[in-house]
Amino acid sequence: MHAIVKPSAAPGAAYQEVPVPEIGLRDVLVKVHTASICGTDLHICDWDAWSQSRIHPPLVFGHEFCGHIARLGGEVEGLKEGELVSADMHVFCGHCYQCRSGEAHICQNVKILGVDGPGCFAEYVRIPAANIVPLGAGISTDYGAILDPLGNAVHTVLAGPVAGRSVAVIGCGPIGLMAIAVARACGAGPVLASEINANRRGLAQAMGADVVLDPARDNVAERARALTPGGGVDAALEFSGHPEGIRTAFQAARPGGRVSLLGIPSRAVELDLTRDIIFKGLTVEGINGRRLFDTWHQMIGLLRQKRLALEPLFTDRLPLRDFAQGVERLRQGKAAKVLLTP
Amino acid sequence: MHAIVKPSAAPGAAYQEVPVPEIGLRDVLVKVHTASICGTDLHICDWDAWSQSRIHPPLVFGHEFCGHIARLGGEVEGLKEGELVSADMHVFCGHCYQCRSGEAHICQNVKILGVDGPGCFAEYVRIPAANIVPLGAGISTDYGAILDPLGNAVHTVLAGPVAGRSVAVIGCGPIGLMAIAVARACGAGPVLASEINANRRGLAQAMGADVVLDPARDNVAERARALTPGGGVDAALEFSGHPEGIRTAFQAARPGGRVSLLGIPSRAVELDLTRDIIFKGLTVEGINGRRLFDTWHQMIGLLRQKRLALEPLFTDRLPLRDFAQGVERLRQGKAAKVLLTP
Amino acid sequence: MHAIVKPSAAPGAAYQEVPVPEIGLRDVLVKVHTASICGTDLHICDWDAWSQSRIHPPLVFGHEFCGHIARLGGEVEGLKEGELVSADMHVFCGHCYQCRSGEAHICQNVKILGVDGPGCFAEYVRIPAANIVPLGAGISTDYGAILDPLGNAVHTVLAGPVAGRSVAVIGCGPIGLMAIAVARACGAGPVLASEINANRRGLAQAMGADVVLDPARDNVAERARALTPGGGVDAALEFSGHPEGIRTAFQAARPGGRVSLLGIPSRAVELDLTRDIIFKGLTVEGINGRRLFDTWHQMIGLLRQKRLALEPLFTDRLPLRDFAQGVERLRQGKAAKVLLTP
Amino acid sequence: MHAIVKPSAAPGAAYQEVPVPEIGLRDVLVKVHTASICGTDLHICDWDAWSQSRIHPPLVFGHEFCGHIARLGGEVEGLKEGELVSADMHVFCGHCYQCRSGEAHICQNVKILGVDGPGCFAEYVRIPAANIVPLGAGISTDYGAILDPLGNAVHTVLAGPVAGRSVAVIGCGPIGLMAIAVARACGAGPVLASEINANRRGLAQAMGADVVLDPARDNVAERARALTPGGGVDAALEFSGHPEGIRTAFQAARPGGRVSLLGIPSRAVELDLTRDIIFKGLTVEGINGRRLFDTWHQMIGLLRQKRLALEPLFTDRLPLRDFAQGVERLRQGKAAKVLLTP
Repeated sequence: MHAIVKPSAAPGAAYQEVPVPEIGLRDVLVKVHTASICGTDLHICDWDAWSQSRIHPPLVFGHEFCGHIARLGGEVEGLKEGELVSADMHVFCGHCYQCRSGEAHICQNVKILGVDGPGCFAEYVRIPAANIVPLGAGISTDYGAILDPLGNAVHTVLAGPVAGRSVAVIGCGPIGLMAIAVARACGAGPVLASEINANRRGLAQAMGADVVLDPARDNVAERARALTPGGGVDAALEFSGHPEGIRTAFQAARPGGRVSLLGIPSRAVELDLTRDIIFKGLTVEGINGRRLFDTWHQMIGLLRQKRLALEPLFTDRLPLRDFAQGVERLRQGKAAKVLLTP
Repeated sequence: MHAIVKPSAAPGAAYQEVPVPEIGLRDVLVKVHTASICGTDLHICDWDAWSQSRIHPPLVFGHEFCGHIARLGGEVEGLKEGELVSADMHVFCGHCYQCRSGEAHICQNVKILGVDGPGCFAEYVRIPAANIVPLGAGISTDYGAILDPLGNAVHTVLAGPVAGRSVAVIGCGPIGLMAIAVARACGAGPVLASEINANRRGLAQAMGADVVLDPARDNVAERARALTPGGGVDAALEFSGHPEGIRTAFQAARPGGRVSLLGIPSRAVELDLTRDIIFKGLTVEGINGRRLFDTWHQMIGLLRQKRLALEPLFTDRLPLRDFAQGVERLRQGKAAKVLLTP
Repeated sequence: MHAIVKPSAAPGAAYQEVPVPEIGLRDVLVKVHTASICGTDLHICDWDAWSQSRIHPPLVFGHEFCGHIARLGGEVEGLKEGELVSADMHVFCGHCYQCRSGEAHICQNVKILGVDGPGCFAEYVRIPAANIVPLGAGISTDYGAILDPLGNAVHTVLAGPVAGRSVAVIGCGPIGLMAIAVARACGAGPVLASEINANRRGLAQAMGADVVLDPARDNVAERARALTPGGGVDAALEFSGHPEGIRTAFQAARPGGRVSLLGIPSRAVELDLTRDIIFKGLTVEGINGRRLFDTWHQMIGLLRQKRLALEPLFTDRLPLRDFAQGVERLRQGKAAKVLLTP
Repeated sequence: MHAIVKPSAAPGAAYQEVPVPEIGLRDVLVKVHTASICGTDLHICDWDAWSQSRIHPPLVFGHEFCGHIARLGGEVEGLKEGELVSADMHVFCGHCYQCRSGEAHICQNVKILGVDGPGCFAEYVRIPAANIVPLGAGISTDYGAILDPLGNAVHTVLAGPVAGRSVAVIGCGPIGLMAIAVARACGAGPVLASEINANRRGLAQAMGADVVLDPARDNVAERARALTPGGGVDAALEFSGHPEGIRTAFQAARPGGRVSLLGIPSRAVELDLTRDIIFKGLTVEGINGRRLFDTWHQMIGLLRQKRLALEPLFTDRLPLRDFAQGVERLRQGKAAKVLLTP
């Protein structure tokens, strides 16, 4: 089969022929219908510090996809061939304290398919049956291909109450943009969006933000305080990973509010804990992946009932072999989500 | 001034002249702009068993309204004359355990204006400043007049998670209808509605219910199980107060789900606690009034951002003097909300 | 091996020779060290209506135990032979909505070992590896044998806040008695206990109840109101399953309080929902089993640090063959927990 | 009357004669029985940067105390002369978003008695009736004098679940020491304590810590991981305010755990958010004051039932005039709580 492969410990990626994966008794082989490129995939291409410490080439990467079940392992129950499915690529151990407490998304022994093992930028991908999520009726393959990042967005937004509450989305990359749509669909208001890239500010508007700000010109925290009765937003959701974005999130939240952090800073960040967390009585949530499978249930509920209209994010469609072109479009800030077809 | 009065311990109500209320140092006098009739007002007219045990005529009744501040008591801070306001009519003591725990809506010494003291079916109404809610910009007087029952609906819906969750609304009187709109606005789906009256089923559709059922023909609990992956809805919200409706709510909820009870049965109800609550691991919430003032904050957030479109419920508009005609329309099941102008 | 068996569809139980269970690839064979008799086992002996509808003889029953791992299935990871373990006997499917939402304790397809399949009143018992709980250091075999009912107690007590809160325990059978100790260990106070049997009232005292009441003489709800500032206890925990006990729980809880129901009534119960749940703004929790495995984590935390002193409950110790004698002691209300050694 | 006064904008404090406070209609005059010295009082003596920016001399300071009601304002209800009371010294506005959401402890307009207005190091102190907490039976004047810091401890400990959970207390000043006792009383285990001062490590033991560590020698985070099944403690409670203590708290918490921050760092702190919060899926709570009055209810519940034995903390008793001597004892790290009698 063909796949996008990190061939060796150096920048770049290759479209290569590789063997179709073997599956175990409790695995499922999925024929990939549509995959999608994540920011993480760009880091893997770039061979940045994080990739060097974590990735073992050669590796088929990619972790956002949907497809149809091609073959079932002998002990798999409750699934059937031909079914349209996606998967949570966080392979959890099932034994650790977290797995046994309903927190498998932060399993102490997690392995991520597409990072620590072969992923979905390929014609076929092997997935443990326990990680498969059947999509059922009413969810298209376009949406099916982005459930991984959409799950991040849903997990971040719904980590606290948003109905009838004010929300700020800091950083409008694809996950931030999805979070705007999710927050709107779940009754948040006003929804403020902050983003430095004009293209993305346009998409933020399209996703339903009530107020779109440019942190290069606007004092986001001040605007948050001016637009809300509580001295800031009820929930500030951080997707930029930039130290300034993170500090803005803390300053934009009201006393007693919430800050949820998903964006990943690449180095330590200085925070005024006294003013911005302690005196404010703030709650901060670190967000990792999506809850297994509670976030998936919520996400599928929202999608099946057509509560989210994310079409403006499907900016690019390419055959899998043109992966490099998709990467280029993302680097230029021209694409939101690039859909790939093997 | 003119007012609707319960003149004596007997059925009926009268449009009479009464003195404008005196106000104390921490009270506010509000000039009523629009009021609205509640089911409770019909009970007071009827002089039913509950009314006989609770109401002390003569009484100006009515408890749903908005209006402009006409006069401020000498010690009132933070409000100003002319402001458009509504009020929570539950006058709480401020000293009891519940008031001191952020649960003033279930104050042990609560008095309800319009029930235990003079209400808003009048040109002017006296309200303790602590009960006043300024409406600010963006909320019309029509919506302002129904915030009391809308608050009931918001309190019921948001007593547990609804985003991406399935919800059943049992009983589509005005509060149930509002609950449908609130659930939709807050990301619930599918939203099932069950109602015996065809008129109201039409309104349920207009409010955004995904599935509308007639309990005279449909097995509501069975449909709930068929339409959801969890063996029933995540949340069953009971507004009918009928023993059958209540039992349906318990049967329609999934194991681990929630039942919120707002509808008030007039006598004891037999429940199969073992099957319907204990083995299911269900959570049941009794809903009384609205949280002070957290529900108001959520409600105002939803309204200010235009997340709710309740216009179909404003079926009737009458001058206050024609109160009896509004009562008649409600009794015939022809009206949803009747707005009154003094 | 020897075992206590329900030999046929009739009252009684027999001590018989049966084959040692075969185990599958993901099962564990446990050599039983100590088992304990549950009220459910008495129902099975009696062959009551519930047993007739659920039990398929011949059946080795019993579901409270600890023992050492004798053999591991070929695919079992993370466990080792000789280890002291107990198990949650609720065999969950792993696929249903509840299993995938961290609520496997209310799995839609649950099978209970000792009820729906062979249990632990035997020299050996087969347990799916996923259900095994290693006890580690610091937990004796006596305590290890009662973790199933202790888990019920912990689940009930900790279904809501108890630290610094008043608690009423209605019904002081073994689980109610354990709940008193758990509530005390978790900072509850005052802890009221209500029980009709004088023996058990003595044990309630020994478990640390602050006030012990006899519902035959005391008005429990009134005492609850007199002893607390909130107009009733913060949490009323129901273990009796009697309609009167259940109604007392609802009346003893304060407005805004919690009622957790574990005791199982054998028929429908009439409740004054309006007065006792709705107007009070009460929260009611149905309690089934124990959370998998969150309750186990909490329970092991409490036991390992010696926060619970349950020795007074170990009233009887018998060889497994004298099971009938243990049943007799329980029927006479003389025993609390009967420990059996195969 | 006599009082401890900050006479002017310079280091030091004086024992002076000042007028007895006048009270308003809704105030209470309390005759102070016992007061206690807080670390904040040392900052005020020192005239540090914070004090210079906040304190307006001359000021009677002090904010930990109990006493008897000497006089009631004309509109005060529900209190009576002679009653033993304490008070929350955070005077909240009652109008802001937070006050109206049950979060008055983080009122946007809060004024603290003893900091922003006259405090309790005096024979008499004026307190708004809304801030008074009657102590009722069973709470001694020693305990009554330390309810302010004990409330901080209770608020911090109970900001998340602790029953059957592992807890680390970082920093064993008086509030950290109280937190150990509270955590123990509420079922936490194991309770780890980390403190650099040997005296305080002894007190940590006396308060019931299961493991006492010295951060100068022990790797606290490593020990936390070794002693718990979840890869760290369920809850790390930070009372030191030191950057190292704060970083230790984050490293000691398990994935999915909680960090509550009460200790106040005097400058910005660098945190590895990616590793220590985001990937871990951590929850962080800023803790300010105590919940009004929910924390007080919990604290009084714990004290009335004798669940806390804090006597070892009452190391010093002095007449109010010897305030300077108490300050000295605290500075030398010899005293835990210094009780003062006017």
